[in-house]
Amino acid sequence: MPGEAIDRLIQTLARLPGLGPRSARRAVLVLLRRRAALLEPLRDALALVAETARDCPVCGNIDTTTPCAVCADPGRDAGLICVVRDVADLWALERTGSFRGRYHVLGGLLSALDGIGPDDLGLERLEARLGPDQVREIILALPATVEGQTTAHVVADRLERPGLIVSGLAHGVPLGSELDYLDDGTLNAALTARRPLQG
Amino acid sequence: MPGEAIDRLIQTLARLPGLGPRSARRAVLVLLRRRAALLEPLRDALALVAETARDCPVCGNIDTTTPCAVCADPGRDAGLICVVRDVADLWALERTGSFRGRYHVLGGLLSALDGIGPDDLGLERLEARLGPDQVREIILALPATVEGQTTAHVVADRLERPGLIVSGLAHGVPLGSELDYLDDGTLNAALTARRPLQG
Repeated sequence: MPGEAIDRLIQTLARLPGLGPRSARRAVLVLLRRRAALLEPLRDALALVAETARDCPVCGNIDTTTPCAVCADPGRDAGLICVVRDVADLWALERTGSFRGRYHVLGGLLSALDGIGPDDLGLERLEARLGPDQVREIILALPATVEGQTTAHVVADRLERPGLIVSGLAHGVPLGSELDYLDDGTLNAALTARRPLQG
Repeated sequence: MPGEAIDRLIQTLARLPGLGPRSARRAVLVLLRRRAALLEPLRDALALVAETARDCPVCGNIDTTTPCAVCADPGRDAGLICVVRDVADLWALERTGSFRGRYHVLGGLLSALDGIGPDDLGLERLEARLGPDQVREIILALPATVEGQTTAHVVADRLERPGLIVSGLAHGVPLGSELDYLDDGTLNAALTARRPLQG
């Protein structure tokens, strides 16, 4: 039975994924116990992000600069665009540190159930970048689910142009995994796409 | 690889109990996706709590009013004080809705390891309330652990006065539990403290 302001904080925190009412209460107690070390830094970090975070008008990434740090980086290859479902997937690819092109965030996948059609994926924005940026290749880095692969097909059809390569991520055995535990589809894909080993 | 401000928010959130780096990232993505519905209310709730939350100078509860809502409520029995380890335990007792007295928050338990002695528990503050508030009974609602019960003994000794009742919580079978799964100590306590059933 904490005060009204504290209670509202608990209820707002409890709406975050991974936190329920019980863990939100624990988190708020820790925040209240460590006001200078935790509560105030969190307040300041949230206020700054709420103030500055914007959707990048070019690629759809979320960042505190406009355009985002990826689009603004002159060292990145504008001729290579990676199409991702959402910002979470963009961040996941950025964590690998191995992709040096730019992105296009769809913001979702085609879904009849959720009423998301081809017009909701910002494809005109992507098409508008093809000429000016002299785009050579589009990589469709979409989930290997039915919705993801359906979306990939529709996007690939729409982007078909002479001289433009549209590629997809490789399917196969994830690193560190036992063959015994893999599903048949993945094993099948790995067999079909087998590669000669460099001796 | 989100921007610096977003990254700082993720790292600060990850220090809350129940959240790690991975779930903090997920939480921040949800916050960024739902700015008006979630990010801004959370920012406002945090700012208000950071601004107004104070330790109650009477009982040690944390609230946004001084003294706290419990101490300020004239409908609560000032003659009955419940001693708790921390604010989490105070909130737990308040959730039952069955206690209508006031509190004293120790802020910890006696611990040679952590260097917490009897002088660190604010007992002078508690003793100063005994006379003016005409306190009749002190309930020691402390954890049923070695530290909790040691602390209870020390506090009980210190508060011994003619006419003042010092009581502790009952030990016994928790509601909803199977006897088969209970430890011997609890069963023993429940047997020793058995009560005649009202027919």
